Amino acid sequence: MNNKNLRIKIGILGASGYTGSELVRLAILHPFIEIVFLSSERYVGRSIDEIFPHFKGIKLPKLSLIDSLFDQDLNLDVVFCCLPHSTSQIIVKKIFEELKFKQKIRVIDLSADFRISNTQSYEKIYGKKHTATVLQQKAVYGLTEIYRNKIKKSELIACPGCYPTAILLPLIPLLEDNLIDPNNIIIDAKSGVTGAGRTLSESNLFSEISESMKPYGLPLHRHQPEIEQELSNQIGNEVSITFVPHLIPINRGIIASIYLNCSDLSSSKTIRDKLFNKFKNDEFIEVCNEGFFPSTADVRGSNKCMISVFNKNDDNKIIIFSVIDNLVKGASGQAIQNMNLIFNIPESSGLNNISLFP
Amino acid sequence: MNNKNLRIKIGILGASGYTGSELVRLAILHPFIEIVFLSSERYVGRSIDEIFPHFKGIKLPKLSLIDSLFDQDLNLDVVFCCLPHSTSQIIVKKIFEELKFKQKIRVIDLSADFRISNTQSYEKIYGKKHTATVLQQKAVYGLTEIYRNKIKKSELIACPGCYPTAILLPLIPLLEDNLIDPNNIIIDAKSGVTGAGRTLSESNLFSEISESMKPYGLPLHRHQPEIEQELSNQIGNEVSITFVPHLIPINRGIIASIYLNCSDLSSSKTIRDKLFNKFKNDEFIEVCNEGFFPSTADVRGSNKCMISVFNKNDDNKIIIFSVIDNLVKGASGQAIQNMNLIFNIPESSGLNNISLFP
Amino acid sequence: MNNKNLRIKIGILGASGYTGSELVRLAILHPFIEIVFLSSERYVGRSIDEIFPHFKGIKLPKLSLIDSLFDQDLNLDVVFCCLPHSTSQIIVKKIFEELKFKQKIRVIDLSADFRISNTQSYEKIYGKKHTATVLQQKAVYGLTEIYRNKIKKSELIACPGCYPTAILLPLIPLLEDNLIDPNNIIIDAKSGVTGAGRTLSESNLFSEISESMKPYGLPLHRHQPEIEQELSNQIGNEVSITFVPHLIPINRGIIASIYLNCSDLSSSKTIRDKLFNKFKNDEFIEVCNEGFFPSTADVRGSNKCMISVFNKNDDNKIIIFSVIDNLVKGASGQAIQNMNLIFNIPESSGLNNISLFP
Amino acid sequence: MNNKNLRIKIGILGASGYTGSELVRLAILHPFIEIVFLSSERYVGRSIDEIFPHFKGIKLPKLSLIDSLFDQDLNLDVVFCCLPHSTSQIIVKKIFEELKFKQKIRVIDLSADFRISNTQSYEKIYGKKHTATVLQQKAVYGLTEIYRNKIKKSELIACPGCYPTAILLPLIPLLEDNLIDPNNIIIDAKSGVTGAGRTLSESNLFSEISESMKPYGLPLHRHQPEIEQELSNQIGNEVSITFVPHLIPINRGIIASIYLNCSDLSSSKTIRDKLFNKFKNDEFIEVCNEGFFPSTADVRGSNKCMISVFNKNDDNKIIIFSVIDNLVKGASGQAIQNMNLIFNIPESSGLNNISLFP
Repeated sequence: MNNKNLRIKIGILGASGYTGSELVRLAILHPFIEIVFLSSERYVGRSIDEIFPHFKGIKLPKLSLIDSLFDQDLNLDVVFCCLPHSTSQIIVKKIFEELKFKQKIRVIDLSADFRISNTQSYEKIYGKKHTATVLQQKAVYGLTEIYRNKIKKSELIACPGCYPTAILLPLIPLLEDNLIDPNNIIIDAKSGVTGAGRTLSESNLFSEISESMKPYGLPLHRHQPEIEQELSNQIGNEVSITFVPHLIPINRGIIASIYLNCSDLSSSKTIRDKLFNKFKNDEFIEVCNEGFFPSTADVRGSNKCMISVFNKNDDNKIIIFSVIDNLVKGASGQAIQNMNLIFNIPESSGLNNISLFP
Repeated sequence: MNNKNLRIKIGILGASGYTGSELVRLAILHPFIEIVFLSSERYVGRSIDEIFPHFKGIKLPKLSLIDSLFDQDLNLDVVFCCLPHSTSQIIVKKIFEELKFKQKIRVIDLSADFRISNTQSYEKIYGKKHTATVLQQKAVYGLTEIYRNKIKKSELIACPGCYPTAILLPLIPLLEDNLIDPNNIIIDAKSGVTGAGRTLSESNLFSEISESMKPYGLPLHRHQPEIEQELSNQIGNEVSITFVPHLIPINRGIIASIYLNCSDLSSSKTIRDKLFNKFKNDEFIEVCNEGFFPSTADVRGSNKCMISVFNKNDDNKIIIFSVIDNLVKGASGQAIQNMNLIFNIPESSGLNNISLFP
Repeated sequence: MNNKNLRIKIGILGASGYTGSELVRLAILHPFIEIVFLSSERYVGRSIDEIFPHFKGIKLPKLSLIDSLFDQDLNLDVVFCCLPHSTSQIIVKKIFEELKFKQKIRVIDLSADFRISNTQSYEKIYGKKHTATVLQQKAVYGLTEIYRNKIKKSELIACPGCYPTAILLPLIPLLEDNLIDPNNIIIDAKSGVTGAGRTLSESNLFSEISESMKPYGLPLHRHQPEIEQELSNQIGNEVSITFVPHLIPINRGIIASIYLNCSDLSSSKTIRDKLFNKFKNDEFIEVCNEGFFPSTADVRGSNKCMISVFNKNDDNKIIIFSVIDNLVKGASGQAIQNMNLIFNIPESSGLNNISLFP
Repeated sequence: MNNKNLRIKIGILGASGYTGSELVRLAILHPFIEIVFLSSERYVGRSIDEIFPHFKGIKLPKLSLIDSLFDQDLNLDVVFCCLPHSTSQIIVKKIFEELKFKQKIRVIDLSADFRISNTQSYEKIYGKKHTATVLQQKAVYGLTEIYRNKIKKSELIACPGCYPTAILLPLIPLLEDNLIDPNNIIIDAKSGVTGAGRTLSESNLFSEISESMKPYGLPLHRHQPEIEQELSNQIGNEVSITFVPHLIPINRGIIASIYLNCSDLSSSKTIRDKLFNKFKNDEFIEVCNEGFFPSTADVRGSNKCMISVFNKNDDNKIIIFSVIDNLVKGASGQAIQNMNLIFNIPESSGLNNISLFP
C-alpha cells in the first residue's frame, strides 16, 4: 500500500464526552486521519473548541446531530462510536443498514453494546433487550494484542472496557498456557475519575472526590462479566472472578492489582517469562523487570500498558500489576490502534506520544 | 476520680513530624491535657508555629532537644514518643531508667520499636539489634478496642502502625470466632501520603505523586509481620497473609480492602453480625449497613474506623473494607485514646471532632 | 447569664449543601446548641448521614420540607438559612410573619438576599425583584469583627459572602483611618471549589478542575457590589474596585491578594500597626508578622482569618494577603460566631477547632 | 534546505530535572532531533528510564557526567543546558572555549545565567559574580515571538523564565505601541509546582502543597528584574512593576493576571486588536475572543500561550490573562522552538502536540 497519500476519513459520534474528545486529540495527531464528522446531541451547531478549549486553533468540523450522518454522503471509512450503551446499538445498526451498502464503512464501537456476545447475558447485565443481535454476533472483541487477526478482518469492532483491557492483557496469556489457577483470581482495581465519563452527578464533583478514595461497584460491576466472558472463552470453561473497583482522585489511570495462585506448571519466573515472550513484539506492552512498581503517571496520555509480576517469598501466590491510561489504551487509543490494524498501517501510527510526566 | 480539675501533663518527642503535629492538634483540643514539653532536634529553640503555622495564636512550649527532658523536673504524666524507630527505643529506655523512679511516667510510643514482641523478628525486619529488650517484652500493643484491659494497666504502650490498625480491627474478632479461613487472607491496602511522614525524598514531592498512584512495599512491607504477629497470637498458630500497599494522592486516609474466605461456621451475615456485636459499644468503630461503601473522606480528621462487609452472590468469598485516617486512628488519635483509657477518663475525650468534609 | 444549662435550639434550612452541612458540623461541636430541625427539599425524609456519611453515628433530626417548619411548634431560638438567593427571602419573610409573633426567633441568613441594602442594586445584581424589602432594610450585615454591636441587637443577620469576608476585614479598618487610596484598590482573589457550592455542572466536575486553574466572574462578580457597598459606607463615598476571582483545585480556602496605594498618612508600618491594633482582641483574626506568607492550609477547617502586609522596597504600594476557609469564616463559622454574639456566650464557643493540617 | 535527511544532534545537560526530562520528551517527538548526550551528575551511568519510567521502551543514551562531554568528539549541533544558575555559566563558558572552535555548536541555556544582560544586576539578584561576562553580552534573550530575528543568528540563547514568558508576550507589544501606562503594571501570577523544579524541600512535599495555596517570593522574586529588563528595553526607560507569585497545587501551568491602565491611545478594543494583529501568524499564541477565560488545563503539555483581554465596564482598567504550561512554552518547548528557528525548520517541528485534557 502506498501509505503516503492515504487519507482515512473518520466520523466520531459522541465527541463531547471524554472518550470522544480523546479520540479527537489522537485523530488530530494521526498522520493519515482526516476528521470529517463530529456529533454531539447536546452541543449541535457549536464548535468543539467551545466545549474543549484545548482544541482552539485547530480546524475541525462543527458538532452535528447524529441524524445528519445519514443525510449526506460523507464517504466515511470509519465511524467511531462513543455513545452510551443501548444508544450505540441503535445507531450502529442504522449505519450497517443505511450506509454500508453504498460505502465500505468500518465501525469501531467504544460502548458496551457489542462486547458481550451472549444476548441473555447482555440483557441481564445492562437491563435492556439487545436490538441488534445479528451485529452482536458479528462484532469482534477489540483487545488488540490478543485478537489481532480477527480484528484485521472485522467490520464491527467492540473495543473493550478500560478495566477489562488492563486485566485481560496479562491474564489471557497465562490462562493460555495453564500457568494460573482459574478458580482463584482476585482483582483489586483502582481507577481515575474520567472512567466515569463526563456525567453530571454529585459523586463526580471535585469536592466529593478530591482528598478521598472509596470502593464501589459491588456486588457486580458491569465489567466483571465482560472479563469473565473472555477468560472463559480462553479456557473453554466458566471462569468466575472476584473483582472490586475503587475510585481514586486522579484524572487518568487504572491500576489492576491481580492476586493469583500459580498452577503446578508455573512459578513467578515462568509467568514473567511467558508475558515477556508473549508481548516481546508489542510496542505498547511493557513487561517490567523484576521489582519495578509501575505508576499510572508512567503511562499518562500514552497507549502503553505496563505489567509487573511479583511473588511472595515462600509460596505460590503471584501478584500482577497492570497499569494503563483508561482514556487511551483503555478506550480511544486502543480504538485507533484497531483502526491502524484494519488499514494495514503501522500499529503505532498516531500513538507514539510520550507519557506526560509530571 | 474528680475529673474537673484533672491536668495530665504531657511531653511530645518528635513534634515536627506529621504524627507529632497531629498529636499537638489533638492535645490542644483535649479537655484535660496540658502540653508541657515539645522536642524537635531539627528546630531547637523555635516556636512550633514557625514550622506549622496552623498553630499560630496558641500558647505552646518552645521546641527543645530531647536531652533537656532529662535535665529538669517537668513532672510529666505521659510522654508521647513520635521518633523514628531505633531512636525511639534508646530514648524510651532512658526515660524508664532516669525518670521513672522519681516520676510516675507512662510512655506511649508511636514508633515501630515496641510493636514486635519477638527480638529476632524485630532485628530481621528493621535490620538492627533491639537494645531495650526488657521493655520490648513489657510493652502492650495499643490496639485500643482489642486490648483495652492490658492497655489500662500498662506503663509502656506500643501504638500500632496505621495499616495494622485498619486491618486488625475487623480481622481479630473474626479469627476469635473462627469465622474465616486464616490461610487465605489477601489485603490490598491504599494509603495517603502522610503515611510516609515528612521525609524528604523525590518520591514524596508533589509533582511525583499528584495525578498518580502506584503499589510499593513488596516483597515484604514492615507492617506485614506486625499484622501477622497479632493474627497469629489470636489463633495460636502462625498466620501468613498477602499484603500489598499502594500510594494514593491524598493527604490522609487508608482503605484496606480485605479478601477472605468464610469458614464452615460463617457467612457474610454471621460475619457482619459478629462485627456489629463486637463493636456495638465502641464509639469510634462504625460497622456499616449492608451495601455501604466507606470513603476516606468520611473519616478525615476523625478517630473513626469504618468497616463494611460485602459478599459475592454465590460463594463463600467475603470482602471487607476498613477505612481510617492514618494520622488519627492510625497514629495520634489512637495514642490519645490509649491515654484516656489509662487515666480512666471518657475514651473519647479530645477526640469527638467531626470529620472535615469536603 | 447562667450558661451551663443554656440550650440554643436551632434549625438549619438547606442542610444538604456544603454550607448547610458545615453548619451541622459546627453545631454538633457547639456546647450550647441543640439541632432541632434540618430541611432539604431534595432528600425529604432521609437521614442526613445518607448524604454525608461523615455524620454517621451522630443523632440528628431527619431531613424535612421547609414547610414543616411552619406546621409545628418547635420553639426554635435561631434559624440558619442556607438556601439559594431569591428563595431565601421568601422563607425568611414567612418566618417573620408566621413564627415571629409567637416565638423569639433570630434568623441568620447565609444567602445573598439581605446583604445588599439597596433594593435597586439588589435587583440589578441578582436579576430579580426583592420581595422582602422591609426585612432587607432591617437586616444587619454580619461581618462579626466590624459590626459586633449592631449584630448583637439584630433579629436578622445577613452573613457576608466568602470573598467579601476575606477582603473587607483588612480593608475597612484601613479606610476608617484614611490609610489607603480608595480609588485604586485591585483585588486578585482565588477560591477553592466549595465556594461554588454543590451545584451540578460540568465546570464543577473533578476532571474539569483538578490540575487546572482559571479566572472567572468578569466583568462583574456578584460579590463585587457587596464589597463596594461596605467600603462606600465606610468612607461615605462611592468606592469602585477591581475584583477578579480565580478558581483553584482545592476544596476549601480563599486567598485575596489585595494591591493598594498608601495614602499620605501611611506606610506599610502604619498599615500593619493599624491592623494589629484593630484586631488585637479578636481571637479569629491573625495579623501576621512581617514576611509571613499565609497559606489556605493554615486555616483549613478553622474560623481564622490570616492577614499579612507586604510592601515593595521603594514606593507606596502595599500588598495585603487575606486568607480564610470559605466554608467556615467565609460562611458557617461566621454565622455561628454571630449567633454566639447574640446569645452573649464566648464568641469562640464551638469554634476553637484547630486547622486540619495536612 | 533539504529537511528530509536533517539530523540535529543534541546534548541535554541536567536531564534528571523536570526541565531536562521535558526536553527529552519533546526531543523524542521531534522529527529531526537525535539525542546524543544526556548528563546527570547524580545518576551517572544509569539509564534515564530508571529515574523517569515514562521513557521505558525508548532508546536513549545513558546518563553521563558533564565532563565526558569534553572528552569525546560527539559532533553536537546543539547543547541544551538545564543546569542550576551559576553552574550553567561555567559549563557554557567551557563549551565555548573547548568545543566551539572545532564544532559549530549552538548553546540553548535554560538557566537564569544569561537572561540578565547587566553584570551588576545579575550579581545583585543572584548573589554571585558572573564569570562569563563576555558570553553574557553575547547571549540573545530567547522569547521566540518577540526576538525571532536575533535568535536565528545567535550562538547562545538565554531562554526566558516561565513567569517572564507568560508576562512579556502580551506586554511587549502593548508597550511597543504605547497602549498602556508603563508605571502602573501589577501582575498577580500563579504557578504550578514543577516551577520549583525537583528540589528536595519540605515546601515541595505533596502533603504541604495539596489542598493549599499561598503567595511567595516577596519582596523581590528573581523573575521580576528579568521582566523589568525587557519592558525597560522596549520603551527605553526604567519600568518598575509589582509582581506577586503564588504557588498552586497543580503540576503544570502558569496564569499571569495582569492589571493595566490604558494609555490615552487605547481601549480594551485597541489592545485586543493589537495583540490579535501582532500574533496573527504565530501558531503558538492564541489571542482569545472577548469573554473567554483561559485555563491552565487548556495548554497542559502544549507549547501554547493563551492570552485574553478583559475590561471593566466604565473605566480605563484592563485585565489580561496569560496562560502557559511552565515546562513547555515556559521552558523546554520554547527552547526547542528556538532551535527550530536556528535550523530554519518549521517552528512547530516536534511541538504540535495537543494539550492533554483532562
